[in-house]
Amino acid sequence: MSRSFQNLNIDALFLGPKSENAVFFREMMDYAVSEHMHWRSGFHPGDSAFITSVDRHEHNYRETLYRTEGILNQLSAKLKNTSIPFFSPRYLGHINSDTLMVSNLAYVMAMMYNPNNCSYEVSPTTTELELECGLDLCRMFGYDTKKAWGHITSGGTVANYEGVWVARNLKTLPFAISQHPQVKHLVSHKLPEQLRNMPTAEILDLISELHGYGVFEEIRDMTCRGTGVRHEILGKLLVPQSKHYSWMKAADIFGIGQDNIISLPVNDNYQTDVEHMRRITFDLIEKGESILAMIAVVGTTEVGAIDQIDEVVALRKECEERYGQSFYIHVDAAYAGYACSMLLNEQGEFVEYHDLAKYHQTAGIMPEDISWPKPETYNSFKAMKEVDSITIDPHKVGFIQYTAGAICMKDKRILDLISSKAAYVFQDADGSASTSNKAILGSSIMEGSKAGATAAALWAAHRLLPLNVSGYGKVIAAGIVTAHRLLEKLGKLPPIEVGKHRFEVHIMPSPDFHMINFTFKEAGNNSLSNHNELNKRLYELCSYSTGRAYTNDFITSSTILDYKEYGDTPWRYAEKCGFSRSEWEKVHRIYVLRAAVMTYSLRNEEYFEEFWQQLHTIFVKKLNQLVDEEEKKARLISNLYVPFIELA
Amino acid sequence: MSRSFQNLNIDALFLGPKSENAVFFREMMDYAVSEHMHWRSGFHPGDSAFITSVDRHEHNYRETLYRTEGILNQLSAKLKNTSIPFFSPRYLGHINSDTLMVSNLAYVMAMMYNPNNCSYEVSPTTTELELECGLDLCRMFGYDTKKAWGHITSGGTVANYEGVWVARNLKTLPFAISQHPQVKHLVSHKLPEQLRNMPTAEILDLISELHGYGVFEEIRDMTCRGTGVRHEILGKLLVPQSKHYSWMKAADIFGIGQDNIISLPVNDNYQTDVEHMRRITFDLIEKGESILAMIAVVGTTEVGAIDQIDEVVALRKECEERYGQSFYIHVDAAYAGYACSMLLNEQGEFVEYHDLAKYHQTAGIMPEDISWPKPETYNSFKAMKEVDSITIDPHKVGFIQYTAGAICMKDKRILDLISSKAAYVFQDADGSASTSNKAILGSSIMEGSKAGATAAALWAAHRLLPLNVSGYGKVIAAGIVTAHRLLEKLGKLPPIEVGKHRFEVHIMPSPDFHMINFTFKEAGNNSLSNHNELNKRLYELCSYSTGRAYTNDFITSSTILDYKEYGDTPWRYAEKCGFSRSEWEKVHRIYVLRAAVMTYSLRNEEYFEEFWQQLHTIFVKKLNQLVDEEEKKARLISNLYVPFIELA
Repeated sequence: MSRSFQNLNIDALFLGPKSENAVFFREMMDYAVSEHMHWRSGFHPGDSAFITSVDRHEHNYRETLYRTEGILNQLSAKLKNTSIPFFSPRYLGHINSDTLMVSNLAYVMAMMYNPNNCSYEVSPTTTELELECGLDLCRMFGYDTKKAWGHITSGGTVANYEGVWVARNLKTLPFAISQHPQVKHLVSHKLPEQLRNMPTAEILDLISELHGYGVFEEIRDMTCRGTGVRHEILGKLLVPQSKHYSWMKAADIFGIGQDNIISLPVNDNYQTDVEHMRRITFDLIEKGESILAMIAVVGTTEVGAIDQIDEVVALRKECEERYGQSFYIHVDAAYAGYACSMLLNEQGEFVEYHDLAKYHQTAGIMPEDISWPKPETYNSFKAMKEVDSITIDPHKVGFIQYTAGAICMKDKRILDLISSKAAYVFQDADGSASTSNKAILGSSIMEGSKAGATAAALWAAHRLLPLNVSGYGKVIAAGIVTAHRLLEKLGKLPPIEVGKHRFEVHIMPSPDFHMINFTFKEAGNNSLSNHNELNKRLYELCSYSTGRAYTNDFITSSTILDYKEYGDTPWRYAEKCGFSRSEWEKVHRIYVLRAAVMTYSLRNEEYFEEFWQQLHTIFVKKLNQLVDEEEKKARLISNLYVPFIELA
Repeated sequence: MSRSFQNLNIDALFLGPKSENAVFFREMMDYAVSEHMHWRSGFHPGDSAFITSVDRHEHNYRETLYRTEGILNQLSAKLKNTSIPFFSPRYLGHINSDTLMVSNLAYVMAMMYNPNNCSYEVSPTTTELELECGLDLCRMFGYDTKKAWGHITSGGTVANYEGVWVARNLKTLPFAISQHPQVKHLVSHKLPEQLRNMPTAEILDLISELHGYGVFEEIRDMTCRGTGVRHEILGKLLVPQSKHYSWMKAADIFGIGQDNIISLPVNDNYQTDVEHMRRITFDLIEKGESILAMIAVVGTTEVGAIDQIDEVVALRKECEERYGQSFYIHVDAAYAGYACSMLLNEQGEFVEYHDLAKYHQTAGIMPEDISWPKPETYNSFKAMKEVDSITIDPHKVGFIQYTAGAICMKDKRILDLISSKAAYVFQDADGSASTSNKAILGSSIMEGSKAGATAAALWAAHRLLPLNVSGYGKVIAAGIVTAHRLLEKLGKLPPIEVGKHRFEVHIMPSPDFHMINFTFKEAGNNSLSNHNELNKRLYELCSYSTGRAYTNDFITSSTILDYKEYGDTPWRYAEKCGFSRSEWEKVHRIYVLRAAVMTYSLRNEEYFEEFWQQLHTIFVKKLNQLVDEEEKKARLISNLYVPFIELA
C-alpha cells in the first residue's frame, strides 16, 4: 500500500499544459457520463420512455438542441477569448495552477446525480464523503478524529466566518450560565475577569454538564444567539496586521464591529510579531478586557508569511497558568494548510525536523540543495493540533477546482452553540431533532444548500493523494522547489539594460512558502512613486489588462504593501531597493509583483533552466515595451510630461 | 427571435428519465472537453510539451492513471448505490428534479478553465456572465436594471444573509449621520422615532449626499460595521411564523439575536396574515421601536405558500404616509421566484391578469381546465419590483444543478454599506479602490472565492430559456399542470382497503405553487399521534431510509406542521382529516407527506394518467406493506403492543 503511494507520478495527475493526458481524460469523462446514463436508464427498466423517437422528430426538437449547441458555442468562444491560462507555468500569479484530473472528473460524475449536502436525505452518498474529507484534514493537522470534525465550505472566507461564529457564541456562554439560577454555581468560583476569558476546553465541558442538567437549550437562548451581541462581553478580535479582508467582513457581519479588531503588528518577515502579540494580550487581560479570539495566519495571501502558531499556543498556556485566563485560537491556513502534508510520513506522523531534509531527498521530492520548511515554520505546523479551529482551502493548495474551502474544529461539541434545524430536513416525527450523525450537516454549518459534487471531488483527490509526504507532499514540493530556484535566479540576475536605462530586480527574501514578491527598479530612480508606477505598468503588461491573457508570454499578479496594513515592515524592502526613508514616509506603500509558484511542470531542473531563459527574455521584452511607451508618450506630450521613469 | 422561443421543446432541454438525449449530451460533453483541450495545446504552440511520451512510459505513470481510474470506479459505485433519482417522475419530494443539459454542460466547460468570480482578474469571462445573470433576474422582477444589481450566492441561505446584512447596516446609518458634526444637519429635521425607521430610498439618497461631502467612509465606520451591533438602534426583524431556519441562523450570525425576531402569524393558507402583520407593525411604530426589516416569503419550503407582497408594500406606504416612518423589505423567493416568468410576455412585460389564462392556453403551456396563479399570487409577483431585495434560487426552480442561489437588490447604492476591498484583488497602484465596475464582485458580497463555472451554467440556462412565458414559464408550467392534476386525483381517490383497514387520502387544498402536502388517514383512527406515526412510516417506505432509493417505486419527502411554527393553522387540516380539537391540542403537530411537483415528464395528460395508475398501485402496495409490518409486530410482541394503526 505505502509503496504504491511512493509511486505516484505527478505528470499523470493533471491534464497537463499541452493536454498531454487528453486521451485518458476523455476516456474517463466518457466513463463518468456513461455510468450515470446507465443508472438512469436502469431505473425501473419496465417504465416506458417518456420521450419517444416520434417526439424527437417534432419540428422544434432539433431546433431546441441546435439552440443549446449554439449557446455552448458562444460560451466556449467567450471562455477561449478571455480566460486565464492557469494551467501553464507561464502563469505565476494568484494562488492558481492546473487542477487535478481526478477531482474534475469526480465533480462531473457526482454533479449529474445532483446531490445537495445540506441534508443527508438528498445526498446519502456525498454527505458521507464530505465527512470523510473533513476528518482527513483534521487528521493531517493532528486533531483527534474521534473528537474533531471538519466540513467543506464555499471558500476560506466562509470558513473564517464559521470560526468567528463559534468563538463568539462560546464567549457568551459562561455569562449566560452565571445568570441562570439552576446552574450558576457551575461558574460561581470564577472571578468576573476569569469569566471573560475562560479556556475553550473548559467551556466545552460546561456544555456537556448543561446537557446533563437538561438546560442547555435554555442557556443557549441566553447567549448572544438569543439576546444579540452585547459588547461588554464580546471583547476584542486579535488579527494580524496583514489581515485578509475576510476578517474585516467578519467583524462587520457578526456584529462585533471593525473597531473591535486589534491589529497585531508584523515583524520583518510579515509574520505576527511575537513580542507585540504577547504584550497586547497581557495588557488586555490585565485591563480585564475580553478576548473574543486570536487569529493567526498560516500563509498570508500577499506574501505567504506563516505565523508562529507554537508561540500563540505557548502564550495561551502562559495566560492560563499566570492568570487563569485564556482565549480562542483560530488559524487561517487557507493558503498553506495543505503543506502540512510535507511534514508527515506515510503513517501520517510528523517526521522529526532534523530528519526531514534527508527524508524529503530519500522520498525524491526535494533535491539536495533545497530544503523546506524553516524550523519555525515546522514548529508552527506541529502546534496546529492545539488550536481550536483551522481554515484550509482545497481550491488553493489542494489543487481542486473552485470552489472548495473547509474548516476543521478540534472538538465537535462546539457545534451545539451554532446548530439549528429545519423540520423538513432534519426532524423526526416526534418533533425531536434527528440523532443521526448523518443528518447534521445543514443544521450545523453557516450555509444551507451545497453541492455534493464538491465533496466527491475532494474525496477523490484525497484518495489519490494521501495527505502525507508521498501524496500531496510530493505535488506541493514541486512548487516549492520551483519557487526556490526562481528566487535564486532573480536574486542573481544582472541588471537588464534597455537603451540608457538599467533595471535591477529586487526580491523579498526568504518567503515562508511558495509566494515570491519582487519588483524591477530603474537604476538612478529615487522616487518611490515612480517605482510603483513602473511596477504597476509591468504588471499590466503581464496580465489580462493590456490585451488577451492568452497571447501574453507571462502572466503574474501584484499587490500593494502599505503602511496602513503592515506598518513600517515594507520599509525594509524599500530600503533594500535603495529608497530613502523620507521617500517611504512620503509614499507609504510599495507596489510589488506577486507570484504564487504552484506549477508542477518545472520541478525538473532542465525544464526549469529552459523556462528561466525564456522568462529572462520576456522580462527584457516587457521592459523594452515599457521604455518605448514612455518615450513615445514623452515625445507626444512633451509639455505635459510627468516623469515616470527617468528618461535621462 | 421571439418565434424561436415559442418553439422551445421541453423534452430537448433535459437528459431525460431514460437518458433519452444521451447522444446529444455525449456529443456536447465531448465538444466542451475538446474545446478546452485545444485551448491548452494552442497556448504558445512553440513551447515544447513538458510531458513527453518517454515520461508517459515511466513505470509509475500508468500506475497513477490506473489508481485514478480505480478511485473513479469506487466513486461511481458509491453514487450508483445510494443516490436519489431526482430525474424521474417517480421522485416527487424535495424541490428537485432533472436539471438542464445546457447548464450541466456549461458548468463542465467553464470548470476546466477554473475561473474564480471573486475577482475579475481571475475570471474575466465569468464575472461578466454573473453580472448579466444578476440583471436578468432583476429585470424579471421589474427592477430598473440601470439602478439594480444581482449576483450569485452559494445558495438561498447566503442570499438571505446578505439581505439582512444590508438592511442592518442601512438601519444604523441615520444614527451615525446624526452624530457627525459636519453632516448631522442632513437628518436634524427628523424626529428621533423617524430616525429609527427611515425609508430605504431616503437613506440611499443620504449615501449619495455623504459622498458629496466626502465623509461617507468616515460615517460608515460609525455604523454598526465599525461600532458593532447596538440593540437600541437595530430593532426587530419581522419574519413569517413559517420561518425558514435560515432566518434563525441569520439573527444569530448578524448579532441581532433570535429574541429580536418577531413572528408574523400565518393565515389558513400558511401565508403571512395581513391583518396581524399590520397590527404588529403599527404597534411597533407607535411604541417607537425600530423595525430592522420585514421578511416576506414567496414560496415557503414546507407548503409553497406565497405571501401577499402587494399588501406588504401597501403597508409600508401607509406607514410612510401616516407616520413618516418606513421599513426595509426583503422577499425570500428562493423557491417560487422563477415562477414570475410565467406572468411575463416575450417582451418581459406583465400580462394583465384577466388575459393570462387565455395567454397561457394560446402559448400552449396550460390546458383549458387548469389555470395559475390565483389573483393574489399574481398581485404578489407584480409588487415585487417595490421591495428592496429578493432571494431567488437558480438551483431550485431555475433547474440548475447545485449550488446556485442569487440575490437581487433594487438599488445598488446599498452596496456601499457592506463593501470592502483586498489590495491584491481590487486595488490600483495609487491605493484607491478600483473604479472598474468589473472588479467589484468579491468586495461587495459576503463570500470570497466562488466558482465562475456556476455563472456560466446560469448564463447558459438564461440564454436558452428566456425569463418569460415561452422560456422558463413553459418548463415551470409543466410542473404546475402536473401538480394540479395530481391534487385532483388525490382529492377524488376513494378509500384504499387493505384487509379490514380503510385508508383515505387528505390533501391540503389550493397550494399557491407546485407543492402538494397530503396524508393517509385510517378510517376510524381518532388518534393524531397514530396518524402521525402512520404517515412517518409511509414516508420511510417512500424514501432512502428503508433501503436503496433506486429500487423504490416512489420517493417523496415529508415535514411536520406544528403549533410552534404555525400556531393553530395546521388544526384546519387536522380537523379536515377528522381529528378532534382536543387531539390537536394534545399533539400540536401533524406529520405530512410533501411533494414538490417539478417534473416536466407528465405534462402530457396521457402520460399523467398512466403515471397515476402506477402511483395508485404503489400506494396500495405501500399500505399493504405497512399493515403487514404492523400485524407481524403485533403478533411478535403482543404484550408490548402499542396501537399504531388500529388492527381491529
